[in-house]
Amino acid sequence: MAKYSIKYMCLLALLFIAAISKVYANDGYKLWLEYNKVTNTQLAAGYRQQLKYMIFPTASDQLKASKAELLTALDGMLTLKPADTKNIMSGQTVIIGTPQTLKAFSISVPDSIGTEGYLIKTTLIGQKKGIVIMANTDVGVMYGVFNFLKLIQTNQSINKLNISDHPRIMYRVLDHWDNLNRTVERGYAGSSIWNWHKLPGIVDQRYIDYARANASVGINGSVVNNVNADALILSPQYLLKVQALANVFRTYGIRIYLSVKFSSPVELGGLKTADPLDPAVKKWWADKADEIYHYIPDFGGFLVKANSEGQPGPQSYGRTHADGANMLADALAPHHGIVMWRAFVYDNKVPDDRFKQAYNEFKPFDGKFKDNVIIQVKNGPIDFQPREPFHPLFGAMPNTPLMMEFQLTQEYLGFSTHLVYEAPLFAECLQSDTYTHGRGSTVARVVKGDFNRKLITGMAGVANIGTDLNWCGHPFAQANWYAFGRMAWSPDQSSAVIAGDWLRMTFTNDENFVSPVKSFMLQSRENTVNYMTPLGLHHIMGVSTHYGPGPWVDNAGRPDWNATYYHRADSAGIGFDRTTSGSNALSQYAPEVKANWENLQTCPDEYLLWFHRLSWTYKMRSGRSLWDELVHHYYIGADSVKQMGLTWDKMQGKIDAERFTEVKQLMEVQLNEATTWRDACVLYFQTFSKMPVGAAYPKPEHPLDYYKKLKFYYVPGIGGNNYMTN
Amino acid sequence: MAKYSIKYMCLLALLFIAAISKVYANDGYKLWLEYNKVTNTQLAAGYRQQLKYMIFPTASDQLKASKAELLTALDGMLTLKPADTKNIMSGQTVIIGTPQTLKAFSISVPDSIGTEGYLIKTTLIGQKKGIVIMANTDVGVMYGVFNFLKLIQTNQSINKLNISDHPRIMYRVLDHWDNLNRTVERGYAGSSIWNWHKLPGIVDQRYIDYARANASVGINGSVVNNVNADALILSPQYLLKVQALANVFRTYGIRIYLSVKFSSPVELGGLKTADPLDPAVKKWWADKADEIYHYIPDFGGFLVKANSEGQPGPQSYGRTHADGANMLADALAPHHGIVMWRAFVYDNKVPDDRFKQAYNEFKPFDGKFKDNVIIQVKNGPIDFQPREPFHPLFGAMPNTPLMMEFQLTQEYLGFSTHLVYEAPLFAECLQSDTYTHGRGSTVARVVKGDFNRKLITGMAGVANIGTDLNWCGHPFAQANWYAFGRMAWSPDQSSAVIAGDWLRMTFTNDENFVSPVKSFMLQSRENTVNYMTPLGLHHIMGVSTHYGPGPWVDNAGRPDWNATYYHRADSAGIGFDRTTSGSNALSQYAPEVKANWENLQTCPDEYLLWFHRLSWTYKMRSGRSLWDELVHHYYIGADSVKQMGLTWDKMQGKIDAERFTEVKQLMEVQLNEATTWRDACVLYFQTFSKMPVGAAYPKPEHPLDYYKKLKFYYVPGIGGNNYMTN
Repeated sequence: MAKYSIKYMCLLALLFIAAISKVYANDGYKLWLEYNKVTNTQLAAGYRQQLKYMIFPTASDQLKASKAELLTALDGMLTLKPADTKNIMSGQTVIIGTPQTLKAFSISVPDSIGTEGYLIKTTLIGQKKGIVIMANTDVGVMYGVFNFLKLIQTNQSINKLNISDHPRIMYRVLDHWDNLNRTVERGYAGSSIWNWHKLPGIVDQRYIDYARANASVGINGSVVNNVNADALILSPQYLLKVQALANVFRTYGIRIYLSVKFSSPVELGGLKTADPLDPAVKKWWADKADEIYHYIPDFGGFLVKANSEGQPGPQSYGRTHADGANMLADALAPHHGIVMWRAFVYDNKVPDDRFKQAYNEFKPFDGKFKDNVIIQVKNGPIDFQPREPFHPLFGAMPNTPLMMEFQLTQEYLGFSTHLVYEAPLFAECLQSDTYTHGRGSTVARVVKGDFNRKLITGMAGVANIGTDLNWCGHPFAQANWYAFGRMAWSPDQSSAVIAGDWLRMTFTNDENFVSPVKSFMLQSRENTVNYMTPLGLHHIMGVSTHYGPGPWVDNAGRPDWNATYYHRADSAGIGFDRTTSGSNALSQYAPEVKANWENLQTCPDEYLLWFHRLSWTYKMRSGRSLWDELVHHYYIGADSVKQMGLTWDKMQGKIDAERFTEVKQLMEVQLNEATTWRDACVLYFQTFSKMPVGAAYPKPEHPLDYYKKLKFYYVPGIGGNNYMTN
Repeated sequence: MAKYSIKYMCLLALLFIAAISKVYANDGYKLWLEYNKVTNTQLAAGYRQQLKYMIFPTASDQLKASKAELLTALDGMLTLKPADTKNIMSGQTVIIGTPQTLKAFSISVPDSIGTEGYLIKTTLIGQKKGIVIMANTDVGVMYGVFNFLKLIQTNQSINKLNISDHPRIMYRVLDHWDNLNRTVERGYAGSSIWNWHKLPGIVDQRYIDYARANASVGINGSVVNNVNADALILSPQYLLKVQALANVFRTYGIRIYLSVKFSSPVELGGLKTADPLDPAVKKWWADKADEIYHYIPDFGGFLVKANSEGQPGPQSYGRTHADGANMLADALAPHHGIVMWRAFVYDNKVPDDRFKQAYNEFKPFDGKFKDNVIIQVKNGPIDFQPREPFHPLFGAMPNTPLMMEFQLTQEYLGFSTHLVYEAPLFAECLQSDTYTHGRGSTVARVVKGDFNRKLITGMAGVANIGTDLNWCGHPFAQANWYAFGRMAWSPDQSSAVIAGDWLRMTFTNDENFVSPVKSFMLQSRENTVNYMTPLGLHHIMGVSTHYGPGPWVDNAGRPDWNATYYHRADSAGIGFDRTTSGSNALSQYAPEVKANWENLQTCPDEYLLWFHRLSWTYKMRSGRSLWDELVHHYYIGADSVKQMGLTWDKMQGKIDAERFTEVKQLMEVQLNEATTWRDACVLYFQTFSKMPVGAAYPKPEHPLDYYKKLKFYYVPGIGGNNYMTN
């Protein structure tokens, strides 16, 4: 108690410094669009010189918004307002436009950049030098403007530009698990930013800023409601509200999508069935689609969670996933909408290995889906664990478009108190080699549609956004939103480059800040794997809340909700045997992958207990026993958080005091929780291994029973009045 | 030519900078502590001259925070940082302190300003002129500083100051109806600002800004959890979280209080009973109090809702309110805590008139409560209706402290989409004459304890605060928080003065804005009475949600939740007879009040249907029939909202574009809803009066049935997944 009090006093003192500091308080609301003043005076002078004049005709809302963004940004960064001109002032003018407006300057826009790409180029127009930002479409111009601004935000030269870029994926979508009552399933950043009660009358500035932020990283779709959907969203009363959001999003090149409940024809339409082959059901959906497009002409389509975790679906009527998805696809096709059908299914009759179920259910339907259906597959086979092998469906359905689903909200990654930069997790999955089309057929290539150019492509991120002033709860959680956008645009992007850009745009270009902080960001996900689920452990968190460790959970609502189902620890050893001798889940992968992971000589330590059941004394590559290696990882995991905190302490004064203090507090909480994870898991697994923990390691503060008895109430992200018991 | 162009461009640039500084986005987060730049250059120069130097010793956190506030404010308003000095520079120095530090200058602080008052004075110290801000305590200094800043914020002269002020009420408390799951009962501004999950580790900057705002208007207490309390709040796990908030509040002179569930000894303590006379129960509460004060040495005390709307209480064990309150008071007394015991009780066995119940239950216990118990009484006898007569308990319990309870959150006043400035409502109640101690014994004097100086005094406001960026949902709802603080400090304050100050501090000192906007603020509450509940109608809103009109509600969970119970309209007439010939509720008032309201010649139109049942053709003072008068009020009510909107439109450009646009949207919603109220109520009551609506009035857009069938889902303020049907 006294210990806490002193700590609070210190934090309070820091907060007061934040309140009075001349380094302005920053609540983080502006995200990576801070547009901080360029402090390098030489650079700033160069920027000002080259941007004195502007040719930027704005015939559309998208172009008007692009120009407004440019002006806001240049005012913030350079206190500069480029003068509108009709004639190019050599070396002092930026020309921005589409073929329609650029033809006056005899500038042609290459087809190769497509409908969303852009080209930023220093060039001669006639005899005059200028910077041209060009695109084939208005939204392409917007992306060009945001990326041009990024150059200035990150203090790069704009002297000899020649940047051509276009997205490698068509549908780049945020999935909001937001309920209509404004709770957010697995949301850790306050409540839903959609104020349904006040819509459509009140169009909150926040909706605009949300759209701006998305457009700045190329996100072009938003599913605004939870996949555990409420049929009410399709009522006229709510469609009017959805329309008001769509009107905002449209200006920023974002289409709106809705999660739909498969049984809506019954609940909303009063039909007796939602059987996808029933003509009345088909007509109900077709009519509903017509109605939606009447409100929202550029409506994106439906996201569907069917026959999973209690949701209704076609199987409820003896039909298949293909029957259900295709019926909805037919309703949307006349309007060019798509169906995003989730592959996250698992049966209520628990199969031998939940790992295998999505593949088993979907693989047989390869090629059976309509052209405007895309199957949305989570990155791994279980459920967004700190580390999972790539999902075996990737590469396994060559005739079906597969959409990647990543989770930005940190359901299993410490909520919004743990600093976990997820880009390395995304990259690890995307760069995994499926071998399904020979060596080098990475998940990224599958998702980009490299092996079948006719397929539509997509990537979804489950949003980590809420009403918190800083949107994401943790200042660094914003980086996951940002990185998702960048990787959905270009799946082979480097995590490090993205982190660097984000830090510069969000905080400062001070290299003494960017370099050490980027370094621990890149390490942060591995840290969390280490203190939560090292060596391929998975799904050992607290039941239902998913908060804190729960390796002892063995009495959940169904067997595959139990931690013990996954780690299978006993006195003989630990791990889930998914080799040929076990559940044989590995057979769902290409032979090369299977061989690699099945063989203990080649299976990486990272995936070891995902696929193998081994004795506690099994000798690891390091020379340590499995038990010692496990303990080692738990300890280095927690220790790395402490190290991160020490690095952060040195950042004081380099950024605003408010965010500095907030992150400092968060890191202390993270260290406490990492230590809890470590001690609880080591103590628990020790009851089976019966082996000692090295004397060099600090002893746990409490006995195992203490951790097992911890109770958490009103844990965020699970809605309602929950009185959870662990 | 080129020179001319450049000159022209420079001019344009200047105009643009002026334009963007004028329309700079403002999300309203800073409340009335905007500290906008003083634009009157002559005034600003005068301020700067007189505040060049500062003598402000800061030995405590409260003084440090006061100085930090002063520096932040002067930097914002004047770009001024007064230099610390030890010697007075004549005419250029402000001296701030308590007797302890002021004695060095031979300045004595008068006892008359008490422990929370302050004195701001231009004076000679020796031969040198200076401004002295003095108080007997550190928190008095803080109040002095905030009030000194208000002078500058409102552009008043600081040349010859002589301001002495102190609060007239001891306990000035915000009641948060915030649940531990972060929903807010009757909250319309997002979710609870208390992030219980992240506490105590994360001390949000918002907690500090909340405390600053409260301190700036003299609020010195905060009940952080809902009166419908969760026993969990008293667990050690939560007390640590409460402690973290208390540590923030303390610096700003705010004590923390908790709502407690009367049955906590059973639910939390495992006792078999919560009978207040049971020794084990007494001991449990005494021990719990000791524990709380161990965490929070300046803990304020308990707020209790007992035996009301299903809450447990002493009557559950055959004991009285006095038994219950006194038992808790005994537990808190050693630590100088108080019990705020709510008089908002009504029986599940519906009495002849709910109006009378609180008086009937509490009056007999006058003088039976311990010294540290204060009975918290809502302003009116029913429940925060747009207009209520003052509660008959005021004045009726001369030997018991009564604490006023106002509702800032607009449960019955259009949620957070209607602009309703509530100060006139507060003032109307406070200036009502109870006659219980002769003519002039106003409610304000009762609440101030004028008739028994030994009693403790208090005023509570049910907070309208949530996680919305602007705290209160509607930019103008902030004024109700502000006005509550001002009136709790000084109950006889003028609503107009408060509105003027608030507008200047929150928006601008531009008289062309302040004058017209203040004017409609002062009218706004009467507008809402007119379009919702004119002529003394009450409790005719939608059931449960309290959203929109529901005069037809007749099947609620209990009779006195029905609108028909209150308006009693039929073909013969309308109104609730509370005269001698009716429920005789009027007999609960002093004879003078009763006589005045019972007599149709003297009863004001505003209260008519509160006390009288009259025929539709009853002739009003205006010469109109009751029916015509009713219709007239409904129409002028809705029309006044339209007029307010037209006035607001003229304010464009005078304030930032973001808040201008937000309020414009809100006024459009308000007009729609006011029109709905008008049309629904007129059509409904017409089914009884069978009388025509004047041809000059616009016809309703829809038939009555349309309004009766309107369904609203997930209405805010009632928590959880509600699927309400009206």
